Amino acid sequence: MDYQKILDEIYDEIQPELKRGKVADYIPALAEVEKGQFAMSLTLEDGSVYSVGESKKRFSIQSISKVYTFVLALDIYSKKLYRRVGIEPSGNPFNSLVQLEYENGIPRNPFINAGAIAITDALISHYEDEYKTLEVIMNFIREISNNKELSFDQRVAHSEMEHGDRNLALARLMKSFGNFENDVQGTVMTYFKHCAITMNTEELSRSMLFLAFGGKDPISKREFIDRSKAKRINAVMLTCGHYDASGEFAFFVGLPAKSGVGGGIAAIVPGEMSIAVWSPALNKYGNSHAGTLALEKFTTKTGLSIF
Amino acid sequence: MDYQKILDEIYDEIQPELKRGKVADYIPALAEVEKGQFAMSLTLEDGSVYSVGESKKRFSIQSISKVYTFVLALDIYSKKLYRRVGIEPSGNPFNSLVQLEYENGIPRNPFINAGAIAITDALISHYEDEYKTLEVIMNFIREISNNKELSFDQRVAHSEMEHGDRNLALARLMKSFGNFENDVQGTVMTYFKHCAITMNTEELSRSMLFLAFGGKDPISKREFIDRSKAKRINAVMLTCGHYDASGEFAFFVGLPAKSGVGGGIAAIVPGEMSIAVWSPALNKYGNSHAGTLALEKFTTKTGLSIF
Amino acid sequence: MDYQKILDEIYDEIQPELKRGKVADYIPALAEVEKGQFAMSLTLEDGSVYSVGESKKRFSIQSISKVYTFVLALDIYSKKLYRRVGIEPSGNPFNSLVQLEYENGIPRNPFINAGAIAITDALISHYEDEYKTLEVIMNFIREISNNKELSFDQRVAHSEMEHGDRNLALARLMKSFGNFENDVQGTVMTYFKHCAITMNTEELSRSMLFLAFGGKDPISKREFIDRSKAKRINAVMLTCGHYDASGEFAFFVGLPAKSGVGGGIAAIVPGEMSIAVWSPALNKYGNSHAGTLALEKFTTKTGLSIF
Amino acid sequence: MDYQKILDEIYDEIQPELKRGKVADYIPALAEVEKGQFAMSLTLEDGSVYSVGESKKRFSIQSISKVYTFVLALDIYSKKLYRRVGIEPSGNPFNSLVQLEYENGIPRNPFINAGAIAITDALISHYEDEYKTLEVIMNFIREISNNKELSFDQRVAHSEMEHGDRNLALARLMKSFGNFENDVQGTVMTYFKHCAITMNTEELSRSMLFLAFGGKDPISKREFIDRSKAKRINAVMLTCGHYDASGEFAFFVGLPAKSGVGGGIAAIVPGEMSIAVWSPALNKYGNSHAGTLALEKFTTKTGLSIF
Repeated sequence: MDYQKILDEIYDEIQPELKRGKVADYIPALAEVEKGQFAMSLTLEDGSVYSVGESKKRFSIQSISKVYTFVLALDIYSKKLYRRVGIEPSGNPFNSLVQLEYENGIPRNPFINAGAIAITDALISHYEDEYKTLEVIMNFIREISNNKELSFDQRVAHSEMEHGDRNLALARLMKSFGNFENDVQGTVMTYFKHCAITMNTEELSRSMLFLAFGGKDPISKREFIDRSKAKRINAVMLTCGHYDASGEFAFFVGLPAKSGVGGGIAAIVPGEMSIAVWSPALNKYGNSHAGTLALEKFTTKTGLSIF
Repeated sequence: MDYQKILDEIYDEIQPELKRGKVADYIPALAEVEKGQFAMSLTLEDGSVYSVGESKKRFSIQSISKVYTFVLALDIYSKKLYRRVGIEPSGNPFNSLVQLEYENGIPRNPFINAGAIAITDALISHYEDEYKTLEVIMNFIREISNNKELSFDQRVAHSEMEHGDRNLALARLMKSFGNFENDVQGTVMTYFKHCAITMNTEELSRSMLFLAFGGKDPISKREFIDRSKAKRINAVMLTCGHYDASGEFAFFVGLPAKSGVGGGIAAIVPGEMSIAVWSPALNKYGNSHAGTLALEKFTTKTGLSIF
Repeated sequence: MDYQKILDEIYDEIQPELKRGKVADYIPALAEVEKGQFAMSLTLEDGSVYSVGESKKRFSIQSISKVYTFVLALDIYSKKLYRRVGIEPSGNPFNSLVQLEYENGIPRNPFINAGAIAITDALISHYEDEYKTLEVIMNFIREISNNKELSFDQRVAHSEMEHGDRNLALARLMKSFGNFENDVQGTVMTYFKHCAITMNTEELSRSMLFLAFGGKDPISKREFIDRSKAKRINAVMLTCGHYDASGEFAFFVGLPAKSGVGGGIAAIVPGEMSIAVWSPALNKYGNSHAGTLALEKFTTKTGLSIF
Repeated sequence: MDYQKILDEIYDEIQPELKRGKVADYIPALAEVEKGQFAMSLTLEDGSVYSVGESKKRFSIQSISKVYTFVLALDIYSKKLYRRVGIEPSGNPFNSLVQLEYENGIPRNPFINAGAIAITDALISHYEDEYKTLEVIMNFIREISNNKELSFDQRVAHSEMEHGDRNLALARLMKSFGNFENDVQGTVMTYFKHCAITMNTEELSRSMLFLAFGGKDPISKREFIDRSKAKRINAVMLTCGHYDASGEFAFFVGLPAKSGVGGGIAAIVPGEMSIAVWSPALNKYGNSHAGTLALEKFTTKTGLSIF
């Protein structure tokens, strides 16, 4: 298939959509990103990369980082992780306290905020230190991406913390139910730091390639997680990767994927490729408006789908 | 792959699980089914069938019938259907009124009770008559199964109606929001009738084959729904097919599937086969306990998965 | 105190408020009532009556009728009634299904719709017949009012039934939890009939006098309910009489009272008098806008309050 | 009336109930209180006091302190206070986050935890300092009680803080909605301190006397709050004073009152007296089991009631 031609077509077709939706504005560092931007990249098994748009421009990956921490925690804790975090779609907004209260402090899945904070807490318990944990997360991302330059944006992380009351409330509520082990402020700060990782679509797509190939990077041949766990992570991306629009995404796009409020989406086609798209304006569910449409166009044009 | 051997292994391994769980007991006709039973069947592209256990014994397919009505309604209404029924996992039990009230009478998806009743209502509006609608549904099932003998159990349907207050409440609530078009009692009765269809695992597996092949039956070569819609139906089975355990099923089994309280589960492996399993004792989510485990064993042994 | 002067003052002061708010419009018979109307009446221990405005014009008392049915049911069932209906404020809108589902079909109190329907159902169980029950209710109202002419409006009752899906859903939901004993349609129809009783403020105020005097009408000297139960009914009027604005009403007015969507409010001053006010335009909680303000003015001017 | 005789009767009758219920056990300082204890005191207009049981033994007044802070805040802010805290019964447990989330961070009333924390926050904003605020609260209690010895238990306050995650979550959630003005930890600590005030029933009953007489202490003749506000505070005690059992308390006891998890209840009979009762074992709603029954007996025996 001529992937470059397909990406170019999508680029043209998506232009009228780039101004629709709204950039995340709950912190200044995200609010100031210009909305008309777009980038899309694919990475294939053999390492070949196809891109269109501003694919060298880094953005805040935000919730996409929850995939990496879930991979790390599932590798460490295996089945024990389910005692702390479920694997069901929530049917509620990503930062809701309601369900967390009804379900006694056990977050529904690792991709809603409470779940990702619990995962960060579990990692800190394992590595016994916030800074060590952050270093492990950063090193992991650098390894799966084969890119030593990746980092996070301190300004974004601190800005998140200044507006972090809702997430602190989630952490406190989990603590009140006994589902929290470390310092609340420090853990939430670590969570905000990994959410503040910046990547461009080429880097993001490269970083997810191992999940498209059963946990083993087809280029470096390194296995980062076993096949069975890789498939399960993909399953959670499909059922829970787009907050309360996960069903719609599965319906219209049909690929495991994870979005972030920075406007990025990472998707994988099992056995074929990984894909990253970025466009900062969000739809009402908090997912990239043009990014979602671009992925729908991509699966329609290529016929790629897991179904 | 030696599917018969795999089924035989599963049959042996599943024996200790057959007595666990609880048969649906909200109506006498279901409560009297003996719990130790088990059957599993596969149908491949070329029509070859592999079975184990009581694969000739019919059971009440119940909610699995919601797949057929969703296929029919999506074919008729296409995008207009989403005005009446969503496609998101609910995060709530299958018969909850709470979410339906909060979301103004629009059911979350076609596989929770309210959604399936709304779908039946939409079909009755199209065919302008309850009996005509039921006939269309029955004929459709006979065609996709290539089996003219399929029918439903009047006793089960009437017994459901006698205990149908919760479903009548769901229908009334939708009506109060303007999301109901036909007679409440008659529509819910039609819904109960299609839920009361009886099939054995061979028949059930055969009936789902077209969904494993993009909407086109690979044996008869008839196209029952277009490729894009078939994939979308599979997506909804994956995200919503097991009520509030859909995430867990995707995680552990990794296939689009639909369960029923009669103890049946129908699953599909896109491009490969359709599978049906039956064991009447249910887990706490209302899905077949042994059936779910058998499917997990099947995907573990074969490596088949969409992820 | 010169009650006539106080009523006249209120009448003047309330004029600018009469056009604010919105007449109930869910059924045509209520929607066509003109909004600028106002009436207020007091009945004292000795039978003297003070009125202002259109105090001879009858209106639909709607939920105020729930006080009468609660009196009858509490008299018959005493403590056994609490098995079917609670006595707590709901914290939710009057026709919510959410709480009813969470609390297993036991309505929070006798003044939300579900509770009043359960009370009507309990009365029908006692009198063994819908028509007998309605007759008992009507006769009771005629006796406490010493007025044989009181009746209900058939047109309003049937119009309610045509738009009665929400209430039918509440009844069905209670039935699904085993908290319903008679025919759903017939019981809800009986409920709509007693809600359709019409009275003017003089009649309404007269009918509540026994509750201001410990259950015994100070004029006829007849005891309609014992002192302890009368006080308890007043307590429920105070805590639950104005749906989800009951706290506000207690705070600003400070009297036990019950409102209806027809724009009427009946209030009592224990040991002193009963009061009725009517003005059809409602505030956002479904209580008479000007009626509530008029009662607040009355307690401010007279210093009457239970607190 | 021979109040001493009535108290003595209640004392005898209540003995079999003293062992029922469960002492609050979420912090050690409360858990270690022995359950068989009981005390009850009345203070009349002329300052005469009647007591029975351990009426000189101090206990932790806990949520009863919310009455004092509500009095102070209503006096300072008047109507502006309603922007921050409502006056409706909640229909939910006292520490629920659900309703607070649905209602955008505005607590339902000043007597649920979130509401009382918001009130403490409002007082700190006014007095510009946590310690100043605490001093004002303590001085107020000493003045209304005419007792300079009253203090709070540092150990209880710090123990609350150690187990204070739920309350910190409530504060954080309010902050995320913009309904919180001061430091979260410091404000919640101040809240815990005033909850840790200790009084015996004689002192507690004395402290509430001004609320039974329109805001003016009938002994010292000092007016602590105006008549209209005093009545409104009593109204909120009636509708919201016993968490999600406020309706039941109004129904069976019929007096404005406020309970605390330390086992105390303060009640007032407008124009007559104030009452305090203490027995540490709680019913399922978190209110003193024997204390509630003792007050029900008292109103039954005396016929005192506001209804």
